[in-house]
Amino acid sequence: MNKLEDFGSKDFLDLLFKPKNVLIYDAKPKISFFVDGFIRQGYNLENLYLVSTKDEEILGIKCLKSVDNVPVDSIDLVILSVRRDDLVKELLNLLSRKIVKFIHIFTAGTGEFDEKGVKIEREIKEILNAYPSTRSIGPNCMGLYCPLGKIAYYSSFPTENGAVGLIFQSGDLHSKMVKFSARRYNIRFSKGVSVGNCVDIQVSEFLQYFNEDNETQVICVYFEGLPVLYKNEGRRLLEVLKNMRKPVLFMRGGRTERGQAAVLTHTGSLASKGDIWKAIFKQTPIIEVPPSLDELIDYTYLFSTHIQNYKEKNKEVEYPKFKNVLVILWSGGFGILATDILTELGLNLPIISGKKLDALKQIYPIKIGSLCNPLDMPWIISSKVYLEVCKAAVDDTIDLVLVVTDSWKDLDDERFKNFYNNLLGIKEHVHSLDKILMIILPQYPSESRKILSNKLKNDGFFVYRSIESAAKSFLKLYEYGKKRKVAL
Amino acid sequence: MNKLEDFGSKDFLDLLFKPKNVLIYDAKPKISFFVDGFIRQGYNLENLYLVSTKDEEILGIKCLKSVDNVPVDSIDLVILSVRRDDLVKELLNLLSRKIVKFIHIFTAGTGEFDEKGVKIEREIKEILNAYPSTRSIGPNCMGLYCPLGKIAYYSSFPTENGAVGLIFQSGDLHSKMVKFSARRYNIRFSKGVSVGNCVDIQVSEFLQYFNEDNETQVICVYFEGLPVLYKNEGRRLLEVLKNMRKPVLFMRGGRTERGQAAVLTHTGSLASKGDIWKAIFKQTPIIEVPPSLDELIDYTYLFSTHIQNYKEKNKEVEYPKFKNVLVILWSGGFGILATDILTELGLNLPIISGKKLDALKQIYPIKIGSLCNPLDMPWIISSKVYLEVCKAAVDDTIDLVLVVTDSWKDLDDERFKNFYNNLLGIKEHVHSLDKILMIILPQYPSESRKILSNKLKNDGFFVYRSIESAAKSFLKLYEYGKKRKVAL
Repeated sequence: MNKLEDFGSKDFLDLLFKPKNVLIYDAKPKISFFVDGFIRQGYNLENLYLVSTKDEEILGIKCLKSVDNVPVDSIDLVILSVRRDDLVKELLNLLSRKIVKFIHIFTAGTGEFDEKGVKIEREIKEILNAYPSTRSIGPNCMGLYCPLGKIAYYSSFPTENGAVGLIFQSGDLHSKMVKFSARRYNIRFSKGVSVGNCVDIQVSEFLQYFNEDNETQVICVYFEGLPVLYKNEGRRLLEVLKNMRKPVLFMRGGRTERGQAAVLTHTGSLASKGDIWKAIFKQTPIIEVPPSLDELIDYTYLFSTHIQNYKEKNKEVEYPKFKNVLVILWSGGFGILATDILTELGLNLPIISGKKLDALKQIYPIKIGSLCNPLDMPWIISSKVYLEVCKAAVDDTIDLVLVVTDSWKDLDDERFKNFYNNLLGIKEHVHSLDKILMIILPQYPSESRKILSNKLKNDGFFVYRSIESAAKSFLKLYEYGKKRKVAL
Repeated sequence: MNKLEDFGSKDFLDLLFKPKNVLIYDAKPKISFFVDGFIRQGYNLENLYLVSTKDEEILGIKCLKSVDNVPVDSIDLVILSVRRDDLVKELLNLLSRKIVKFIHIFTAGTGEFDEKGVKIEREIKEILNAYPSTRSIGPNCMGLYCPLGKIAYYSSFPTENGAVGLIFQSGDLHSKMVKFSARRYNIRFSKGVSVGNCVDIQVSEFLQYFNEDNETQVICVYFEGLPVLYKNEGRRLLEVLKNMRKPVLFMRGGRTERGQAAVLTHTGSLASKGDIWKAIFKQTPIIEVPPSLDELIDYTYLFSTHIQNYKEKNKEVEYPKFKNVLVILWSGGFGILATDILTELGLNLPIISGKKLDALKQIYPIKIGSLCNPLDMPWIISSKVYLEVCKAAVDDTIDLVLVVTDSWKDLDDERFKNFYNNLLGIKEHVHSLDKILMIILPQYPSESRKILSNKLKNDGFFVYRSIESAAKSFLKLYEYGKKRKVAL
């Protein structure tokens, strides 16, 4: 019997993220965050069963004494939290009493911890082999998040759904990813899973699932290494990565030898050598992300919003084909820094000269500043001529427009309105050419920045905190466009 | 007559930053920010003369009709703001009527703009040569900031003084530096100057001045290039840089060829080749900063606070001698990322094993997490054992301790207090060993982060937003320690 074909199908795995009923065993106050997460997401509590050996109720929900008291025979998802020494016994006990589709083994301290823990994982694997219709995630993982399935392991996770799917070999990074990216960029998620030590379902299987999942448009992976118990997972992962038809932002832990040593104590995975990964990133459409959650969040923001913008217009997604950038700002010095940073990152700033420069000067005969790119136009950000110059400067040869601004605070209401309308006008023009516009607001932390940033995001602008974060994000989108073209 | 020896002395230049009287000409509403700055800093307005050709009063201060109406013969500082075509005429007019020690030429659109502007600068230089006791900054610059002299060109600049001196070839970057670093890290300044096109006083002269200035401990420079009119400034700058006895954080605009092209339109300076600068940074104790204001601010924060901490204890400043780092956190995944980032940046994470590991396990027999560095100790940050383990782990072989935390929000008051006391305990221990402790609060933007961050800073902690920014800052301090040792 092939477990993957029968109980790894898209339809079957849907149930993991949208379980019709859930059992938590052994429910205790220490893991009440699970219950809290279900309550917050609005899960139907009639279908949530808590079995507890010690507690009568948790967060107002009555606990049952034993699995035998659970009034249904078949359970979609069990969250299993018992001492590691009881894991094997309790698992057998559970499977002999109920038909279970998925088990999330929360218990930690197994394969990542010591030899005894490795032995426990081997035994779990054998049991699961004997119950082929039962699939499992973990051990040593936080588990699942799916707003449409109304499940989450923390109450702080947003209840609205989005188009980003997460496959993380770290529960903490998974939850930081959800919370930080929601807070910084209002990013929302389709489904997320913290996979842990992968004694059954592998990263490759979730990738395949998200590839087919219509609710997911962008996939983020935090990967530490291959499982000791599945020798073929490396080859399989490579095959799956080759065939991904959606952007996969792939952050790898254990890039350095020292990091690999640390991986052993975390998920007990076999960290793999850097040169193998170099080859994998070359052969597949996968986008490598450096070991920085901040960068992963920046990139996720751009990819997911970019794709969403095209979906809303019912258009095929376009990716940048070249790397020509126009910078618009109000500061000579910042313009020099921007030019250096962008050039060092590999972008081109075409110098505006000759007829094009003459045309710009005709619109705006500057006395200070520059129109050669960067457009350094002090004092006039609220005037009509500002918008005209910007529009004339952005033609089809430009792929990315960066507007840096930190002077909104000094504007009175009337001037702010005019300035903001100028930004809207630039956006309309840039988008009509199928190009990308980003606004850089360097003035953090400040209350007025927060207000403007939210306003801009609500109006469909990309807002970044620095030239560097904006440019790096753009370059990832460009890289994906190129890789995708080769793959097509 | 040698202008530099007589009118470039420390005592003479002190007057530039602490002028006993100031004249602004031609005062107009458009440049009222100068007046606003003086008012905010508490400058004695009886000694501030506004001469205006058009306006009767500005911000409540009566304007005089002509320079002839100014009731004193000698003026320490004139801020000159006239049309560029009138610059030469007005300068001659002014110098024939009054004894002027310093002129800040605010007028822009000269040497950076076109050939005519270059010619104007040549004429200004000739006039100043004829008046050797009059020194000048600019043209094309925002000018001066000195809280102790009660002068500033923006009202938003802090009125408290600090130990950081600024020499910037960009007024906008200069003001961003002041505002952003005050907001982010509460950094304060001794003196700052936006130098502009340097028709008289050069960057090298200000460096020499700050080197001798007891009010300044750390010097930040934003440099674009050498002046066209002073062929010897390159050589002189190199000599001065070689002999700096204080940390100089040096950010260079025009690192790339494309950036050099942009420099021409900004300050009209001769940008210099990268390989020359490579040699300069090798031969001098100067610290190179990449083209990022954010990084300059991060480094300034560490350098100035680090030195201040030693001054307060009346101790000779110690710099880190090695690059061994211990990471303390609550998250396996984040620990892996931290290990990779730190290793890739060139830091060492000594693996804790053998007897030291046994000793730690004796204090805290962990069941999940790791004590091998990173110390990954979930759930116990409020307990006494947490502090004990941290103290036992930090010995003289460790140069930097990074504590990453984002879980304070989930703690009740009692637990938060215990957790905070643990942090204080770690700090006391780390400082007793003359080592550096940094706290990483990745959970931005959030209100609770802001509150905790301010509390920590007030209690003398270094607080950073990411592992990367903390580690890069530490590495600059380490680099300076090494360079300084060679120079001694």
